[in-house]
Order: sequence, then C-alpha cells, then structure tokens
Amino acid sequence: MITKEMTLDALFNPSSIAIIGATPDAKRIGGRPLAYLQKHDYQGSIYPINPNYDQIAGLKCYSGIAEVGETIELAVISLPRDLVLDEFKKCAENGVQSVIIFSAGFAEVDDEGRRIQEEMTAIAKKHNVRVLGPNCLGMFNVNKGVYATFSIIIGDQTPLKGKIGFVSQSGAFGSHVFTLAKQKQIGFSHFIATGNESDVDVADCIAYLAQDKSTKVIACYIEGAKDGNKLIHAFKLAADNNKPVVVLKVGTTNVGKQAALSHTGSLVGSDDVYNAIFEQFGVYRASTIEEFIGVAYACTELPIPKGDRVAVFTVSGGVGIMLADQLSEQSLSVLETPQVVQEKLKEILPIAGVKNPIDTTAQINSIPTLLEDFMDIVLSTGLYDSAIAFFSIHRIES
Amino acid sequence: MITKEMTLDALFNPSSIAIIGATPDAKRIGGRPLAYLQKHDYQGSIYPINPNYDQIAGLKCYSGIAEVGETIELAVISLPRDLVLDEFKKCAENGVQSVIIFSAGFAEVDDEGRRIQEEMTAIAKKHNVRVLGPNCLGMFNVNKGVYATFSIIIGDQTPLKGKIGFVSQSGAFGSHVFTLAKQKQIGFSHFIATGNESDVDVADCIAYLAQDKSTKVIACYIEGAKDGNKLIHAFKLAADNNKPVVVLKVGTTNVGKQAALSHTGSLVGSDDVYNAIFEQFGVYRASTIEEFIGVAYACTELPIPKGDRVAVFTVSGGVGIMLADQLSEQSLSVLETPQVVQEKLKEILPIAGVKNPIDTTAQINSIPTLLEDFMDIVLSTGLYDSAIAFFSIHRIES
Repeated sequence: MITKEMTLDALFNPSSIAIIGATPDAKRIGGRPLAYLQKHDYQGSIYPINPNYDQIAGLKCYSGIAEVGETIELAVISLPRDLVLDEFKKCAENGVQSVIIFSAGFAEVDDEGRRIQEEMTAIAKKHNVRVLGPNCLGMFNVNKGVYATFSIIIGDQTPLKGKIGFVSQSGAFGSHVFTLAKQKQIGFSHFIATGNESDVDVADCIAYLAQDKSTKVIACYIEGAKDGNKLIHAFKLAADNNKPVVVLKVGTTNVGKQAALSHTGSLVGSDDVYNAIFEQFGVYRASTIEEFIGVAYACTELPIPKGDRVAVFTVSGGVGIMLADQLSEQSLSVLETPQVVQEKLKEILPIAGVKNPIDTTAQINSIPTLLEDFMDIVLSTGLYDSAIAFFSIHRIES
Repeated sequence: MITKEMTLDALFNPSSIAIIGATPDAKRIGGRPLAYLQKHDYQGSIYPINPNYDQIAGLKCYSGIAEVGETIELAVISLPRDLVLDEFKKCAENGVQSVIIFSAGFAEVDDEGRRIQEEMTAIAKKHNVRVLGPNCLGMFNVNKGVYATFSIIIGDQTPLKGKIGFVSQSGAFGSHVFTLAKQKQIGFSHFIATGNESDVDVADCIAYLAQDKSTKVIACYIEGAKDGNKLIHAFKLAADNNKPVVVLKVGTTNVGKQAALSHTGSLVGSDDVYNAIFEQFGVYRASTIEEFIGVAYACTELPIPKGDRVAVFTVSGGVGIMLADQLSEQSLSVLETPQVVQEKLKEILPIAGVKNPIDTTAQINSIPTLLEDFMDIVLSTGLYDSAIAFFSIHRIES
C-alpha cells in the first residue's frame, strides 16, 4: 500500500523536474531553480518550459508541459498569477505528479485569489497531484541536489549538509533561521516553506520527514494547523520513528493569534491544546529562534539522555548557579555529587565548588586539565545522565 | 556632609594608587595593574611597593607603604594570603583611604580565613578605610584610566568606553559578560567585581554608580544581598537619579540558592521578595546573559519610552507574530493602526500586513524604501511610544 506520505517522494525527491516560466537570467525568480539545479549537480532530468526559448542553459526548452512527452514528477510554476491556473490544469491533465507554485496573489490576498486557489485544489484532488504553495518559497533537498526554490538564501554557495529536516509555514522566517544556522555551520537535510498550504501542509511535511532516512531531527515553525488530527498523526509518526521534533509555535497570545490570522490566514487554536499535544508526543517547544536552532542541532549530534540527572561543570560559579536555576525550573535533577567524590575533587583543588554545580574556579588558568579531570571523576560514577560544561570567554584577539 | 557613597571616590576614582606586591613581570598578578595603569595613561600617582626592587617600570619602588610619605587614596594588595593582614594593618595605620585585596583564601575557604577577614573588617571600620574584596578581581574605571585589577580580560587592548557601570558579585561571570559585550562593541564606564564583600558590597557600588556622571545605566549581577535595606536604598538612589538598573539575579530556585551558598556564601532570600523590590524601583530583571547585555546597552542609547504602545515593523510575518506574542506577554500594547493609516499602507503595497505588526513582506527586496516609508507613515501618527523593526538576514558572504 502506498501511504500518503510516500507519494510526497515525487515532490521532495523527484527524478524529473519541469520549470514552467524558466528564464536564462539566473537573477530572476524563474531563472533561479534551473541555475541552482545545474550548479548543485541535480541528477534527474530537467525540462525548462517557456515558449520564448528553444534552449536555456544548454537544455532543450519546451513551449508547454504537454510537449515534454515524458513522465514529470515535479513541475515548478513561476508565472504571473493570471497565468497560473491554466498551466496548473495542463500539469494535472498531463500526469505531472506534483507541483510547486511560487506565485503569490491567491487566498492570502483577496476573494478572487481564494476562488482560483480552491479551483486548483479541486483539480489537484481529482488528478491526484500534490501541490506545495501557492505563495511559497518552495523547497530544497540538500543531499539530492533538488532545488525547487527561488530563495536567495542559497546564494553562490552549496548549502551545508545536515540532519535537520526543516519545515516552515513562513518563507521569510525559514530563511532567517536557515541563515542564522549557517552562521553557526549548521546545515539541513531539507528546507521546506509551505506558503498557502492549498494541499501539502506542515503536517504532511513532518510525516514525510519522519520517514526520510537523511533526516534525524524535524524542526518546524508553526503558526497554526487547519487540521489538528493530521498534525497529531504526524507527531505520532515522528515519535514512532524516533525522530525528535522541535517546534517554534507562534501565536500564543490573542494579539499574536490575530497577527497570524492576518499573515497566512491561520486559525490558531488554544495554546493549551498545542502544549498538551506537544507534551503527549515529546515535541520540544522552543521559545526563541536561537533555542530552536540550538536544540534541533543538539538532537542531531547527541544521544537523548536516558534520565533527568545532570552534572554541571563550570569555570564560573555564577553561571553554575544560573544553570542550576534553569535546570531546576525544567524539572531536571542537579543531583549532589557523593561525599567521596567531593573529597576527591577537593584533594585536587581545595577551593573548587564540588557539590554540583561543579566549579573549577579561575584556577583552570593555572591547571589546564582541571575541567577534564573533574569531569572524568564525576561522570565515571555513572550517576549522571547528561553533563553540561560551560567555558567562559575572557579574551578576544582582534 | 560627605555621604558614604562619596567616600567611595577614593576607591573608584583615586588620585594616587599604591600597589603592594608590585612586580616588573606584567604577566604576573602583581605586575598587571601597574602595566595596565601605565599603558592606559592613568593620570594620578603610582607607588609600586616591593622590598626587592628599587625601581619598577621606570617608577621608584618603595619597601613599604609607610615609606611613601604621601597620601594614598587606593592601595592594591596582591600578596600571598599569609602576608595580607600585616600589610592591610599598615595601610590602615598610614592613612590609606581605600584598599582592594586580590588575594583569595579568606571567608570563602575556611574558618581561619573567615577570622582573618573579620579582623580586617574591624580594622577597616576603626580607621575608616573602604575595602573591595578580598578574593576579588578588582575594578577598572575606563574614563579615568584606573586599572586596579589583575583580570586578563583587558589584554593588550584599551577597553571600549561606554556608559554602563557594571558591578558583579562574581569575577568570572563579570569577565564573561565583559567579553561578550566587547564582541558586540559595547563598552563600560566601570567594571567592578566585589568578591567576598568584606566591606564594599554590590549595594555600595550601585549607590556609587547612581551618582557617577560617566554612568548612564547600572548593570549588576547579583547572587544575594547580605543587607536588603542597603540594596533597596541603592535602587532608590538610582531611580532618583534617573539611572536605569538592569539586574541578572541568580539563585531563583532552591537548587540555585544552594549553589549560591557554596559559591560566595550568599544567603539568597525569597525570589518573590526580590521581584517585588525590583518592581517597586523599576529595576529590569534579565533572564539570560544576552538579554542582560542587550537591555543595558539599549538603555544607554535610547530614551525610555513614555508609554506602552509599540509599533512592530518586520519583513517577516512570522517574526511579527512572535514579537506580538512577546510584547503582549509583557503587558505592552500592540495597538492596531488606524483604518486611514492601513489604507495608506495598502496603497503602497496591497499585500502588506498593515494592522500592527506591520509586515512589508519580502517585497522589500524590490522596493528598498518600503520599510522606511511604512515607518514614517505609521510613526507620524504620534500614536506609538516605541517601535521595533526586525530585519531578517538572508545572505552571508563568506
């Protein structure tokens, strides 16, 4: 049986891509996907579609989708709004399996836009075409070199490979996160912006990533879900597949909910309901962008601790207290080190803080192995499920 | 009448400094203050004290404090613990007005250390000497070139001048904050680490900075206050002098309080009591190091808003919602823009979010003046007390 998620393979890992509205100018929206695909060695077939060219960037250019005469797994539509519906119909009629629509001006703008979007959704259901967008930045799949996006975040560089599958209901927000992560040398397996969600929504993407082998952690920016059950199903699938999910969920207050309604038309439910769902499925809810990126990245690199006992090592008593406060607020245990261990540490350094938090003090400047020795002694007890070490910075060379 | 705070001028802005335990080696603790003072053009008199030298770094070196024969406003003691008490006595007897003791091994270590510290405190009171430390990193006053510290955070560079007077109960924590701030090009007027607080405590420093002309904002890292009334008096003085105070107060949980007790022996009171005091005097309590630095810096550069109405401008609807949530959680008002203003903005860009948060959308890439125009129109209504503009980053050149 082919599950619904499996059919998204044509969208997120296509073996052939048509670009409707392709142009040779790599700076224009219709030109970028082709330039990215070629630059990053996409291994599938590429079909530029534009009646004004015979050839673009060394590839045969077709006047329309019907002319290609091959199975097309993914078509990208980059056209002025008024041309989108016709081309979308042709895609559906010619057996295209999935479509990404960059163009804006649909349900997010006015009633006429909403009507056209709904008509496309109906056509998509009838012909079994999966649609990402409209009004979306598209997606890319770093490992497969699939660049079905016009985003400028990629620029001239190849995005870093990573194990975070990232899906965002906001293209601009997703771009910001992508760029901050890149500054920290953190990459992604997939970047997906869902736009108006006329068909494929954030829940579909989570469910897909939950089954994707190149993805170890799912990060998602959510404003609101139209179908709560689908979202629950997706979180369950991720949990069943041992994929940690980290969310940044906005629209927690009435003011925020109102803003979300103006932004993507999301009807944002009760925050308590979201929190209950997150808790049920072990979904981590970040409250800042930095935390969102940091926790997602940590989950790709570190094993999930088996229990709640944390050993805290610092070179600054002050930070130790801060961390003790924060761990305690998160109901984690800052278990006191056993008396015998405290004595061992005191033998090495009488002025050290040895109870947990464990504080080497600034003596680490004179004894560079101090932190390592302390960690060895404390962690070899096997009493702790995880450790935090804090290194302060005291010098910047300019 | 000379207030208690005014007498701290000899400590924080001395016209003469003796360094007891001075050495020619600028890498050693006793050598650093002299090297820093000379490098940063301290304008007062410097008296190195060390019986082993006739001269250090071009200055006459004295065998003892009594030999100097001039009024000494500040003496820095950088000696092994067992020599400190004797030298401190000589300072008191020879009319030294204030003393900074770097040496550790006092109340923070054992009963004998506590006894010696208490003896020094008694001598200080009798002779009216103000003492910073012991077990402290010392202080510096950037504008006056006063470097009575052995901290390596200064390094080879001149610290940036700034308007934040910073006092920290932890030297390592203070150093970390100083260095993070420096990375952001943020400087300080004073940096003060209070160590064991045998005499001068965090409250004294706040009261001093509240009256210091070069300080516009007071930032303090607090673990606990031995004298609550003194702290309240200091906050009141800061408020009366229109100096915003930003605190990072740790030890909020029982685990954290226990850790604070091990760290500096601070008896940390109820967090609710602290919060009530902070609220009463308009003290801003930061919960992360980044927030601590950011808010303190913002207070030096921006006027304090007159009211709670905030206009939010973004290039990303997602961030707009996040900000709306956060403002709303802080009881600030994200007042909807008047209908007539909404229409004006829609005339410029029909797809913009115009209600507040105000979202230019990614169209800012095509219309670079969009954000400026939107801000002009909205803020000229005079309806808002402050504005937040968020610029996402989408490209990093490597």
